[in-house]
Amino acid sequence: MRDIRTVLIANRGEIALRIVRACRLLGLRTVGIYSEADVGLAHLQLVDQALCIGPAMATQSYLDGERILRAADLTDADAIHPGYGFLSENPDFAEAVERAGRVLIGPTSSVMRLMGDKISARCAMQANNVPCLPGSDTALPADPDGIYAVCDAIGYPLIVKAAGGGGGRGMRVVQEADELFDAVANASKEAGVAFGNPAVYAERFLEAPRHVEIQILADSYGNAVWLGARDCSVQRRHQKLIEEAPPPGIPEDQIMDLGVACASAAARIGYTGAGTFEFLYEDGSFHFIEMNTRIQVEHPVTEMTTGIDIVREQILIATGARLSFTQNDIQSSGHAIECRINAEDPETFRPAPGSIKTWRPPGGPGVRVDTHIHDGYVVPPYYDSLIAKVIVHGSDRNDAIHRMEAALMEMRVEGILTTASQQILLLNDPVFREGVFTVHALDRRRDGGAA
Amino acid sequence: MRDIRTVLIANRGEIALRIVRACRLLGLRTVGIYSEADVGLAHLQLVDQALCIGPAMATQSYLDGERILRAADLTDADAIHPGYGFLSENPDFAEAVERAGRVLIGPTSSVMRLMGDKISARCAMQANNVPCLPGSDTALPADPDGIYAVCDAIGYPLIVKAAGGGGGRGMRVVQEADELFDAVANASKEAGVAFGNPAVYAERFLEAPRHVEIQILADSYGNAVWLGARDCSVQRRHQKLIEEAPPPGIPEDQIMDLGVACASAAARIGYTGAGTFEFLYEDGSFHFIEMNTRIQVEHPVTEMTTGIDIVREQILIATGARLSFTQNDIQSSGHAIECRINAEDPETFRPAPGSIKTWRPPGGPGVRVDTHIHDGYVVPPYYDSLIAKVIVHGSDRNDAIHRMEAALMEMRVEGILTTASQQILLLNDPVFREGVFTVHALDRRRDGGAA
Repeated sequence: MRDIRTVLIANRGEIALRIVRACRLLGLRTVGIYSEADVGLAHLQLVDQALCIGPAMATQSYLDGERILRAADLTDADAIHPGYGFLSENPDFAEAVERAGRVLIGPTSSVMRLMGDKISARCAMQANNVPCLPGSDTALPADPDGIYAVCDAIGYPLIVKAAGGGGGRGMRVVQEADELFDAVANASKEAGVAFGNPAVYAERFLEAPRHVEIQILADSYGNAVWLGARDCSVQRRHQKLIEEAPPPGIPEDQIMDLGVACASAAARIGYTGAGTFEFLYEDGSFHFIEMNTRIQVEHPVTEMTTGIDIVREQILIATGARLSFTQNDIQSSGHAIECRINAEDPETFRPAPGSIKTWRPPGGPGVRVDTHIHDGYVVPPYYDSLIAKVIVHGSDRNDAIHRMEAALMEMRVEGILTTASQQILLLNDPVFREGVFTVHALDRRRDGGAA
Repeated sequence: MRDIRTVLIANRGEIALRIVRACRLLGLRTVGIYSEADVGLAHLQLVDQALCIGPAMATQSYLDGERILRAADLTDADAIHPGYGFLSENPDFAEAVERAGRVLIGPTSSVMRLMGDKISARCAMQANNVPCLPGSDTALPADPDGIYAVCDAIGYPLIVKAAGGGGGRGMRVVQEADELFDAVANASKEAGVAFGNPAVYAERFLEAPRHVEIQILADSYGNAVWLGARDCSVQRRHQKLIEEAPPPGIPEDQIMDLGVACASAAARIGYTGAGTFEFLYEDGSFHFIEMNTRIQVEHPVTEMTTGIDIVREQILIATGARLSFTQNDIQSSGHAIECRINAEDPETFRPAPGSIKTWRPPGGPGVRVDTHIHDGYVVPPYYDSLIAKVIVHGSDRNDAIHRMEAALMEMRVEGILTTASQQILLLNDPVFREGVFTVHALDRRRDGGAA
């Protein structure tokens, strides 16, 4: 066992609170860091020590690895939990933490690097029997002939993607061969700016896929389990709005096969901690797109269906503990849904920071709200607009949908705009009700196209 | 099916909010009633119609059945949910509701009357193979000879109890025969004042019992199920402070036998709705004490272990629906604990009403908070001092205890005193940890005696 006594939480908002709760439950000392814009954050009331590490701009605080390591020094923090976003998938930061003799709560920097590069991740998955789309197994070459040779073999439509990161940046859909060269050049340029890595690769483009992902946990002794699948197809510009578990309408044994393949691949690449394998699902087949080497925003839906505290397990694994359960011990029951409540204009999805006058969270049986907000909380304009996650658990999908609708109708956030009204509409959308929402549907509708 | 469209919630506080949530989930119209002291109650924001029915004093509002029936008239409410306390176990009110052609969400007035009289309840249970203590099967006679004849046969110590109600009033423990006559006279006088019924009866007194109870649900077609047992032994002057499910250390098959007996008895007496059979448990045996013919404060612990929404089922049964599940469908998993957070001085347990400056509920996986309070809420001095119920679910009892402790440590209530600090101490009490707390233990400790 690695001796971890103090965990520094290198994040903010609801996930920082979530991590502090898990640490306290484990009897660990906690350190909170915050920017000048975040003095009043809820989790700072619960940590043993709180440290302001810099100005509001994330590059000078939550994204500044050196400052975070200095804060760890100053507070004798043995471990750092990066949460999601910010530095959570940055292998250079992970390596710096390791060199400083501290534990990053997550996979090793080398595994993070392997899976952070989308091309090497793709190769690793192919080598480990995880289904991938037809695509290029190396970065696309610079010369037109080379590009065409690779891409014609893949077939059109295809998508050009950045090796270095996601979220829609460095990404181009190519319908026909004559758009290809410009698309590759532009994607590469954009990728270079966004991720410092101009490498791009190509994969077959799916027109109407669903987003389905597998949550895994792996310890340092080669034990890996999968905790079920989530459907996160309701997206707006690559941002998930509604997530659920299990994915509706997909045969259980097909999901089980995928889960087993993911757990096995995780063990074979030496993955440790919590991680998510993301897939597109179309015409009855799964296709790997990327791995998230961190805790995800939507992890609570899996906690609700399995009863397993994923953040707690993540920390335990980092201390060198063995998984305390096997695949057979994991039982999934009922149906869970999460809505990400963002401080955004529900029409335009533009950020709408500001002061929350009144906050009345929903509640009752099967309702969980993960949030850092409270009456009088001011949503700063500098960071992600997530202000709360409403998660419900029901006996089946219908029950869960009803409970979520009732919860969102009950919730009161006064003073700022939120996405909740759109989410209520989506819960009543016939396509959502049928359980066949696809990842491009919302954007296409907004662009005036068909769903 | 009885046609129920509108439910009037004849209660206040957290249970009123709990009931509104269940009604909304079922698509029912809701009416809230309130006293002049309760204008700002949380559930009144969620009901379709809200009506002030009288002054702060409960006798002129929440306890005034006529006013409540008039409110039902004015708002076309087909059904009335009485919650707990107030008129929830008053058979005269239940009968008035029935005569008015409305549905009381609970058992019929005749079953409520049968079980409301502790003597007839005792007889009904004996006739239905529910284990009872040695005791008198009729009210004690008025003449000393008659009293001694009955009580000497029961044996000492014994307890003289009011037939008409509980909560410690009209109750006397009699250690020896020569204390008997005075005890009966005083108990009877007190019972007459408190319940309008001077009848008292006697039962063998147990020195160190635990309080264990069985939650049942029964429909109008003779189907009855039991949803598990709860241990509510941590009490202060007959007020429960901590409740949990399942009861620690009692063999599962023994609890199952008791549960089956209760469900069977419920069906045979024609019970409908949610109800609780309360028992004392000592030396490995259960002894019936009374039935609560209403939803209980501690019902969420059973909801957490079974996943069944008891208030929803209660309402469905009132509409004439059949139970949608059988005993075999009911699965209990993990361990749940509830702490009743009261606005009281934690040392003296005296009510401590006042204004809540800051309220930060605990949260995270497995934590549920049922409450009507919020920043700025003023706890009125007129009613029960319960301000919140914190309920946690863990994989086992130890996990649940840890989660509850962390939740109470996280919770912030500023501006008033609460019982939470005492509950944190109790969670760490070796006797509680061992799972052998008895109902008199806390009072005896406070009185300077041994636990």
